[in-house]
Amino acid sequence: MEEGMLGTSSESHFFEGVEKLLEIWFEDSAKLDGDLRNITRIEWEKLLCHVKCEIISFKKNDFIDAFLLSESSMFVSKRRWILKTCGTTTPLKCLEQLLELAKTQGYTVISDIFYSRKNFTRPEVQNSPHKGFYEEVTYLDTIFPEGRSYCLGSINLECWYLYTFSRPDVKALPDLLVAEQHKQKDNVDADPDQTIEILMQHLDKDVMLAFSKSRFASGPEATTHSGIDQILPDMIIDDFLFDPCGYSMNGINEQGEYMTIHITPEEKFSYVSFESNVALNNYTKLINQVVRTFKPGKFIVTIFANKSSLAYETMKELEIEYSTLSNWRRTDMQCCNFPSYNLLFAQYSRAVENWT
Amino acid sequence: MEEGMLGTSSESHFFEGVEKLLEIWFEDSAKLDGDLRNITRIEWEKLLCHVKCEIISFKKNDFIDAFLLSESSMFVSKRRWILKTCGTTTPLKCLEQLLELAKTQGYTVISDIFYSRKNFTRPEVQNSPHKGFYEEVTYLDTIFPEGRSYCLGSINLECWYLYTFSRPDVKALPDLLVAEQHKQKDNVDADPDQTIEILMQHLDKDVMLAFSKSRFASGPEATTHSGIDQILPDMIIDDFLFDPCGYSMNGINEQGEYMTIHITPEEKFSYVSFESNVALNNYTKLINQVVRTFKPGKFIVTIFANKSSLAYETMKELEIEYSTLSNWRRTDMQCCNFPSYNLLFAQYSRAVENWT
Repeated sequence: MEEGMLGTSSESHFFEGVEKLLEIWFEDSAKLDGDLRNITRIEWEKLLCHVKCEIISFKKNDFIDAFLLSESSMFVSKRRWILKTCGTTTPLKCLEQLLELAKTQGYTVISDIFYSRKNFTRPEVQNSPHKGFYEEVTYLDTIFPEGRSYCLGSINLECWYLYTFSRPDVKALPDLLVAEQHKQKDNVDADPDQTIEILMQHLDKDVMLAFSKSRFASGPEATTHSGIDQILPDMIIDDFLFDPCGYSMNGINEQGEYMTIHITPEEKFSYVSFESNVALNNYTKLINQVVRTFKPGKFIVTIFANKSSLAYETMKELEIEYSTLSNWRRTDMQCCNFPSYNLLFAQYSRAVENWT
Repeated sequence: MEEGMLGTSSESHFFEGVEKLLEIWFEDSAKLDGDLRNITRIEWEKLLCHVKCEIISFKKNDFIDAFLLSESSMFVSKRRWILKTCGTTTPLKCLEQLLELAKTQGYTVISDIFYSRKNFTRPEVQNSPHKGFYEEVTYLDTIFPEGRSYCLGSINLECWYLYTFSRPDVKALPDLLVAEQHKQKDNVDADPDQTIEILMQHLDKDVMLAFSKSRFASGPEATTHSGIDQILPDMIIDDFLFDPCGYSMNGINEQGEYMTIHITPEEKFSYVSFESNVALNNYTKLINQVVRTFKPGKFIVTIFANKSSLAYETMKELEIEYSTLSNWRRTDMQCCNFPSYNLLFAQYSRAVENWT
């Protein structure tokens, strides 16, 4: 997105669509009126200076504040903060500021942190501390000393990195202190939570044409023409079409759920990401609709679900159903059990060349 | 094992118990009498020169040849070859020789290769190409250009690496050539196969005392006293007690199944590995018996099972049952679906300090 501004210094035009995604949950606030949404826009703008991106649009409802950024999106809820940024942005550099801002709202304890991204197409153009996953982990470890880092998919081909820290699962430890922590932990688990991401590459040329100023004058036109508004129809959409090309949208609904789509349409490095925390007990239909909308040549699906989520028990089934679709070949499939979340990771390539 | 010979050049005594494990399956031989067991002992000895280890004992039955090595074990079946070596050995360096030897028996096509190991305690004392997983993958990629590499567990803490190559799952591809390959593939799958490994660290001091020459004169005494002979009682055992300490055993049974145990008993870097391809539909009892025999402070379990294996469908159940044991905390759990195998990886730490 906004590639005129961002363009790399290398000889040929390139934009890194692959996003860095940070999601942080805080324990209940020590203050009665504690709420991350009390943090002012000016404070968020200052924080985003460290990331090297800007707010370009904003929508909110009773549950969630949704910011459209010059490079992707930020979502702020009462005790959850999500920042997703592409290009050569440096989201980890705002973590200390975030923790300071959260403290002003009485949030002093983190219950879960997730930092994830697909492997970059061109890691060499990234800025520190994002020049490699090892550098990112080293940086995160200075802030969260108990984090664990994972690589899903094939290290030497295509993969997806995850750094996560959760307050430890302490069931087996006997002393009172721990029993107390455990009680708190159960309270935290009571909120169902799930996140699905679909990261698509090698997208259909004709579909990508819709996401440039030469075709449409505004975001809403591209949204309607492409069918993005039909993916989750109850979402109120905030969309933006970049000049000369590129597209971003945030959607929020009355349940406080969000969706967000970011599109880098250039054929040489086309990339589309879909993300939502919509609660479904089976994601097969949603995945099919997203894939039919954008027609990728290959894609990764990740689904996180905590023990209270509808999706927690059905993730395994999803996988089996989906893998039977005949024109896709599943090239990788892994699942991980973390202290409070299950994660499913799957990678698909188109086996049949033409879209029918 | 055999630490007098191997001892590292560093100031304090250290031995790397963590093994490098290679398992290679060949497609059916082009020769009627093709059999890897026709390869002579002298040829194996030459091959093992590249690995930097020697044959110290040998047992066989109608199905399998079991070699005890100065650093761990080698198992040779008709079309499957397994090499497991610890210390600073270089097993990848014998791969070209192995492929030459296999060719003399009519084996020209590899159906599956697995190279795996836990993270080394001291990677800096290893020899090339084993100085790091990246170097190992780069080396393997020169021989098997389509291999995939994985890291299970937490990259920045403790993990287990896997490089694997399988003839691709070709169901979705339409042309005739592929249909032919697919037919062959089904034939290969018809052999049930499964492998369980239990890699243990921080072992009970008193248990480890049995595995030194100061306590027992010979392998069989240590085997009986420790209860190793009770783990899988139908195995014919070939065991060896090293001087001054260290222990290795191979077991083979009349079904052609094998087991192998290798013990580095020194308290500062104690390590015990258990491995077997015994066919069970539930591994919980076996894991419990191994863990009770050696009393580790922490351990990793990996289970591979192909679609014909009894274990394939029940791997998920095993995990659930085992994690309910109260004195163990599961610190990590992942599963992977590969073209012809499922893999379960789990990591456990003792939550309660005393063994009761």
